[in-house]
Amino acid sequence: MRKTNIRELAKILNLSVASVSKALRDSHEISEQTKKKVLEAAKNFNYTPNPYASSLRRKSSKTIAVILPEVADNFFSLAINGIQSIAEAKGYHVLIYLSHENFEIEKTVVEDCRSGRIDGLLISITSETKTGAHIQKLIDDKIPVVFFDRESEDIVAPKVLTNDFDCGYQSAKLLMERGCQNIRFLSFSSSLAICNKRAQGFLTAISDAGITKSEEELVFYCTGNHAETQAQIRNLVMNRNGMDGIVASVERLAIQVYLSCHELGVKIPQDLKVIAFSTVETAPILNPSLSTITQPAFDMGKNAADILFTLMDGKDYGYSKKPLTLNSELIERDSTKK
Amino acid sequence: MRKTNIRELAKILNLSVASVSKALRDSHEISEQTKKKVLEAAKNFNYTPNPYASSLRRKSSKTIAVILPEVADNFFSLAINGIQSIAEAKGYHVLIYLSHENFEIEKTVVEDCRSGRIDGLLISITSETKTGAHIQKLIDDKIPVVFFDRESEDIVAPKVLTNDFDCGYQSAKLLMERGCQNIRFLSFSSSLAICNKRAQGFLTAISDAGITKSEEELVFYCTGNHAETQAQIRNLVMNRNGMDGIVASVERLAIQVYLSCHELGVKIPQDLKVIAFSTVETAPILNPSLSTITQPAFDMGKNAADILFTLMDGKDYGYSKKPLTLNSELIERDSTKK
Repeated sequence: MRKTNIRELAKILNLSVASVSKALRDSHEISEQTKKKVLEAAKNFNYTPNPYASSLRRKSSKTIAVILPEVADNFFSLAINGIQSIAEAKGYHVLIYLSHENFEIEKTVVEDCRSGRIDGLLISITSETKTGAHIQKLIDDKIPVVFFDRESEDIVAPKVLTNDFDCGYQSAKLLMERGCQNIRFLSFSSSLAICNKRAQGFLTAISDAGITKSEEELVFYCTGNHAETQAQIRNLVMNRNGMDGIVASVERLAIQVYLSCHELGVKIPQDLKVIAFSTVETAPILNPSLSTITQPAFDMGKNAADILFTLMDGKDYGYSKKPLTLNSELIERDSTKK
Repeated sequence: MRKTNIRELAKILNLSVASVSKALRDSHEISEQTKKKVLEAAKNFNYTPNPYASSLRRKSSKTIAVILPEVADNFFSLAINGIQSIAEAKGYHVLIYLSHENFEIEKTVVEDCRSGRIDGLLISITSETKTGAHIQKLIDDKIPVVFFDRESEDIVAPKVLTNDFDCGYQSAKLLMERGCQNIRFLSFSSSLAICNKRAQGFLTAISDAGITKSEEELVFYCTGNHAETQAQIRNLVMNRNGMDGIVASVERLAIQVYLSCHELGVKIPQDLKVIAFSTVETAPILNPSLSTITQPAFDMGKNAADILFTLMDGKDYGYSKKPLTLNSELIERDSTKK
């Protein structure tokens, strides 16, 4: 059935466009009887308000945006569920944009958000993002922004994070306790705060154990696209020169380590022990089961959305001053056993 | 920095609003010199066009929407990558909406799409969706729609599918060839065409093998939320009454079978053989490695987006008359070995 616009609807009802518009917005200037007539006609004649026009009028799109680097990582799909659990209860749409770890895409999407399409933004930045200047512009435009997981350190805004330094420390300590003498941290970005905090925790545990090695010897950077990372990790596993333990800063790197070990006949945990920052549900059924630092992904999304709606209500409660830090959990499985 | 609107910009430049607007749209009515002046001022005074206003004017949002049931399934994250590969090349934004397998959410989101926010829609429907009437309204409004993977059979529109019947047939045949005598098909919807075609292929293979069993004995429906499905599958594995083989219609059901088997000490493939429709990258490193029917997820997304842009250009090429069917690949691993 063809849609009717507001002008046609007004003509059918023999009312002015302004009156129909007011009736649809439940204005006190219009009688209940007229409102009822207008709503019935709107239904019968297939009238849907134009969101662009009505957004201009009421200055709210009833929409929040989430910008994420990817969805293949289980962390982000769980975080989305947490976000949606709050947004749905508030009657808001959630638009998801993927930056595909590409800073230029992130910039374009943030720029697009500046122009009034959304009421608030939740963001986890790309591994390439070195400055939050593009996000600061949004905040200057009074559009509330909350960071979760991957933050811009140079931007003052509410942030929902985990205890990354501690977890980096604990994972290195665990590998050394299990007998490893030559361990490496697999990073996926030299600029991301979460990556650097995990690496710093790792390095501190090693230094606390009285081992003196340089950061270059201990941190291995996997950068580039999927195929490049595959090749880098395959190479690292093949020419491992006594390396006997790995802390993967993110799920997909651990999966590549496993795939390479299977292909090359390297045994986990006998030849190489592995622990990863990961929320993957298959961790217990991998061969061997994977030790993980499991982040509270759903709760991080839920809390970030909660804070965003608080900001959208014009309140702050000091969230911008201090990040909300939730704790991850270290779960040991067979991949780090002696 | 505060944003400037077009009125303020016109005042600063001592030009009319109409002239500034024309200059920004690169109109031939405006001199090159003035255009340069306007663009410089727009940059210096932080002017961003309002997309709602400009969408009303040019009747294009440069945005396509994708409605998906979930992103935790690897199939959908790969399909999104395929879609984005085309959209990016065309300079379009991709908005992702998740229906969370909930028909009411899907309906609301489709309704929202009707009101002009987007130029085209790619959709994979929920397991609850029994009719495509809500999607038909969008098509009636001349907004192009392309289905991929999960389609509405009652709607005439372009569709990108896989050879589901064949794959259901092949997977049952493989299990019987490997010695199984009592196999089941795990379905997740009684209304979805892809689920029913996979089940029909499965049932036909069994009937072709001369086995006479009812559909009720052979097809097991896992419906409900995550926790309910977990309980159903745990129960099925625990009280399996000689069941020695499973075809999982979707990745997450196979993962639940694995988790239950590990917990209950049921050995795959000795006690129970498993094959699943799945694109999960971890299939080779699961314990044991999982035999899969691997769909061309990236290519399905890419082709669906390609067809959508063709429709948006006002062409059809008969895509609506016959679905585009891409072939999946059966990859045998240890979970179905003798």
